Amino acid sequence: MQIQTQGNSTTALIVGASQGIGLEFVRQFIQNNRAQRIYATYRNPQAEILTISDPRLRCLQMDITEEAQIANVVEEIKTETSVLNYVINCVGVLYEGAMQPEKSLRQLNSEQLLRYFQVNSIGAVLLAKHIQPLLKHQQRSIFATISAKVGSISDNHLGGWYGYRASKAALNMFMRTTALEYKRSCPRAIAVTLHPGTTDTQLSKPFQRNVPPEKLFSVERTVQQLLMVIDQLKESDSGEFFSWDGDRLPW
Amino acid sequence: MQIQTQGNSTTALIVGASQGIGLEFVRQFIQNNRAQRIYATYRNPQAEILTISDPRLRCLQMDITEEAQIANVVEEIKTETSVLNYVINCVGVLYEGAMQPEKSLRQLNSEQLLRYFQVNSIGAVLLAKHIQPLLKHQQRSIFATISAKVGSISDNHLGGWYGYRASKAALNMFMRTTALEYKRSCPRAIAVTLHPGTTDTQLSKPFQRNVPPEKLFSVERTVQQLLMVIDQLKESDSGEFFSWDGDRLPW
Repeated sequence: MQIQTQGNSTTALIVGASQGIGLEFVRQFIQNNRAQRIYATYRNPQAEILTISDPRLRCLQMDITEEAQIANVVEEIKTETSVLNYVINCVGVLYEGAMQPEKSLRQLNSEQLLRYFQVNSIGAVLLAKHIQPLLKHQQRSIFATISAKVGSISDNHLGGWYGYRASKAALNMFMRTTALEYKRSCPRAIAVTLHPGTTDTQLSKPFQRNVPPEKLFSVERTVQQLLMVIDQLKESDSGEFFSWDGDRLPW
Repeated sequence: MQIQTQGNSTTALIVGASQGIGLEFVRQFIQNNRAQRIYATYRNPQAEILTISDPRLRCLQMDITEEAQIANVVEEIKTETSVLNYVINCVGVLYEGAMQPEKSLRQLNSEQLLRYFQVNSIGAVLLAKHIQPLLKHQQRSIFATISAKVGSISDNHLGGWYGYRASKAALNMFMRTTALEYKRSCPRAIAVTLHPGTTDTQLSKPFQRNVPPEKLFSVERTVQQLLMVIDQLKESDSGEFFSWDGDRLPW
């Protein structure tokens, strides 16, 4: 099949599509025929995304903590197109291996905190750096990164989760700073952070106990809601932080 | 000389006192007889602080990026007192060696970004962890960390300085989370972040060109102003972000 990627076709890059919200974004982009070319990055070679067979989809292995791998993925995309219309970054870590969100200061250690920043904050802004050339065009484009309401400093009334919270606050600042640069370099790009709500994915599994059922979204519902928010974004919304229901969240 | 550190005496720990604002805090604590025992940490063995000779002052070498060194300093202090009334953290990096604040995405790299988080954000919260036992007492105590208005996400209208801005936003989140934990563990401790205004120190030297003279403070004036803010803090101010003029800053 000849891939038509120039002209009026729409292209998307979903980053962190191994599982959860990222994987579901890919599914809905395919189902709704939102894009004629979909690039999806995954880290785990056993990722479920690799079982999806669709000629529009191209899967690329990438670890967002390795800048050279981000650069390689962008080079691969550039061999096919010079335009991205959607970049959706779903990479994020709350726990992995021995790493658990810290309930108190006693549990803090430098390595774990650095890991939170590297995955949740720095990865996104390095992505912003490398995709910039693919957003310099005259079509509307979206650069959306999944953040979290617990990354809102003013909304923090409970405490705990030191590293995760701070890494999401840093992410929000990185994306706002990116949006300011994009206004000059790629004026039709809209860069935002999104709060998906608590979604029934592996990330939230150990923390769902106190979530009332109506506030625990299926991954299908979350992605439908986020796509509705994305579709309604205006250029003046760039640099802001939105909840799944379209409300602007405070920093 | 026998140091009286228990009973009604007042103790202070100034972190990052090698130079600039930290050094001046030590000077004014001595001049105004604000504390009968002052611990000051420095990193550089040629630090100017080492030339101050005063029996109330004890200088301790410490690199805030090394948790074991923070723990050692706290152990040293504990041999003399179980109470700290003031902890003022003045450590911060904007540039060093080849590291320069990034004007655009092109200039970003992972190592430099990690360094910003390690020094400006993680150091402060590891300090918060280790000083906690010395704030569990019935006297009013202050834990103040120097942040910066460019770390306010909502106030970011200019862009640039990616790493510095994000590291200060992360610092603000860490300190707000710390304040919430301290409310339970050390209820008389007030934890805040402070914006000193542009101060004529080494940190701001290369960036003073566009600062109008009346907005460039001498280090003496900055510390006087910050001490006025500190003196007026109420317990309900814990977890907030204050400017040198006492105004609360938005996140």
